[in-house]
Amino acid sequence: MIKIKLMILDSDEIYLERFTSVLNTKYQDKIEVHCFSNVQYANLFLVDNKVDVFLCAENINFDKKVLMPNCGFAYFCDKKSINQVDGAKAIGKYQKIELIYSQILDLFSENSSYKVSEIEAKGLASDKFVYLFMSAAGGTGSSTLAAASSMRLAKKGEKILYINLELLGDCKEFFVSEGHGNLSDLIYAIKSNNANIALKIESLIKNTKVGVDFLECCSSPLDIRDIKDKDINILIDTLLKLTSYTKIIIDADFSLQDISLSLFNVASSIILVSDGEKIANDKTIKLLETFGIIEKQNKTPLLQKVKIAYNKFSSKNAQQIVFDDVKSIGGTPRFDGAVPMQIAEQIANMAFLDNI
Amino acid sequence: MIKIKLMILDSDEIYLERFTSVLNTKYQDKIEVHCFSNVQYANLFLVDNKVDVFLCAENINFDKKVLMPNCGFAYFCDKKSINQVDGAKAIGKYQKIELIYSQILDLFSENSSYKVSEIEAKGLASDKFVYLFMSAAGGTGSSTLAAASSMRLAKKGEKILYINLELLGDCKEFFVSEGHGNLSDLIYAIKSNNANIALKIESLIKNTKVGVDFLECCSSPLDIRDIKDKDINILIDTLLKLTSYTKIIIDADFSLQDISLSLFNVASSIILVSDGEKIANDKTIKLLETFGIIEKQNKTPLLQKVKIAYNKFSSKNAQQIVFDDVKSIGGTPRFDGAVPMQIAEQIANMAFLDNI
Repeated sequence: MIKIKLMILDSDEIYLERFTSVLNTKYQDKIEVHCFSNVQYANLFLVDNKVDVFLCAENINFDKKVLMPNCGFAYFCDKKSINQVDGAKAIGKYQKIELIYSQILDLFSENSSYKVSEIEAKGLASDKFVYLFMSAAGGTGSSTLAAASSMRLAKKGEKILYINLELLGDCKEFFVSEGHGNLSDLIYAIKSNNANIALKIESLIKNTKVGVDFLECCSSPLDIRDIKDKDINILIDTLLKLTSYTKIIIDADFSLQDISLSLFNVASSIILVSDGEKIANDKTIKLLETFGIIEKQNKTPLLQKVKIAYNKFSSKNAQQIVFDDVKSIGGTPRFDGAVPMQIAEQIANMAFLDNI
Repeated sequence: MIKIKLMILDSDEIYLERFTSVLNTKYQDKIEVHCFSNVQYANLFLVDNKVDVFLCAENINFDKKVLMPNCGFAYFCDKKSINQVDGAKAIGKYQKIELIYSQILDLFSENSSYKVSEIEAKGLASDKFVYLFMSAAGGTGSSTLAAASSMRLAKKGEKILYINLELLGDCKEFFVSEGHGNLSDLIYAIKSNNANIALKIESLIKNTKVGVDFLECCSSPLDIRDIKDKDINILIDTLLKLTSYTKIIIDADFSLQDISLSLFNVASSIILVSDGEKIANDKTIKLLETFGIIEKQNKTPLLQKVKIAYNKFSSKNAQQIVFDDVKSIGGTPRFDGAVPMQIAEQIANMAFLDNI
């Protein structure tokens, strides 16, 4: 991996010393940091060195024009909550190092001229296992099972990335984390066509205490609507090349738009969730029949990837779906009186999820 | 309304007499029927008369070439289940008169050169009340509430047309009826651009004992995916002009594709259904926020049409949604141990549905 050359200009030398020490402890193999408290020395260094990201304390009078065009720039501020100073990006100095690092990555991804292939050359698409969770009926708790599966796999030591592509989804139901940005920023970066997408994704990924990394949902469903065929393929290709993850879990709405067709294609396993009641089961069967048509049209296997899981299964009315050779992996009854996160954590302990 | 000129050629004179009598009793103002048991007389009649639909017994040797190009033709057969004879359409003689009538209408709609405006000139778009049922989360029983509302309005004497545009919907969950064809046929007719859409719809409409008329769902969700912006507008315009109905109830998936945007636009009332649980409520709020953005973009009011209804509401965890001035119209708890049709019939007795 190429190291990001970071330069910081700040008159607070004590801060600079501490910051460099913490950064080197955590990200020595990813960032090479050069600190300056004096503008003249900084300008001299810039003459002979190609710098990727430049952070400048807001009280220092520095002329940004001396920077190379593909050098990322942000003001380095005392306030944590500030995002912009004089129309340029701003990063709070007194945040957790992980949050500062992700913003440095973000600046680099938007300005760097490196191509994805140079940075993530090692990742092979076929290495990655992609689980796609969907529901034909909605409201059957497919997001809960997707979150629970992520938690269970993470506990077993897998490196998990969870992505929610639902139009109206919300990762906060299941995962808490700090950090900036969400899928809307990623879609914007893909569409603007001038960012390093792999680094952009890395900068947007949030970590949780349960060991699952995730990308926050879009701010508005209108952003997902605007994803084109081409965009989703760039997104998926880049995800598959990320070397940091062994398994990707995608939670998405069922549709027959381009985005879904691309997901059907890339998924190693498609888990359809039903509550076992008549309406949800009938819709699931209609979906399986549609998969049968699509696989004939596209001449690529689809039904053999499908597994059926049950959530909110009540023994009184609920029945299992029988459809050709499609496997049921089991399920869980309805949990009452708990918030979604607690329910997902309980389901994460259930062995049937090992069959996804 | 223009009368359809129907001609029947069949050697069974007793059948012809009975058929004419039944047809005239039920459809005198819609069909003018001329019966012949002899080919020569039939051919003579065709010289001087413009015939819209021609039915010919399959054992009679008749040369179809003498018919005008826009005359609908079908064989009139003894078997009920037959659809085609020698590559031409076939209609079973011994079916209920309503089913034969709808197939005659269908033939007329596909071949007639009348434009919709000539036949349905009286209907005004603004007369019609359109209820759109949707759910942000799915699986909250929005189809059940849509069906129950249709039943309740029909009981009160309204002329109701129920249409299910869900990708994976199934009218049979709520309504039983005989008859041919479904929405897929209608979409095909709209796309082929050579049918009278109002008559095509009339020919596809099925009647139920509970007083609700409905259009059967698509055979495959792939047919709904293929609906273009233009097609859905033709469909909606024609529905609004149908004089036989006072209220139209549409059950659809939430999406942000063209089809949904057209439906948002045409709906007089949009009923969003939630089960009151956290995930469904959060998704509903995200949907309401999106409606807020769309109404600003399009400069047409949207949020003021929205009402929230609850189904499967369990008093233990469920909560009502609070969002600006959007009204809740009430709801019903979960019904256990009954099939969807029974549940819809029970809910149809509940007064809160009067607020939709």
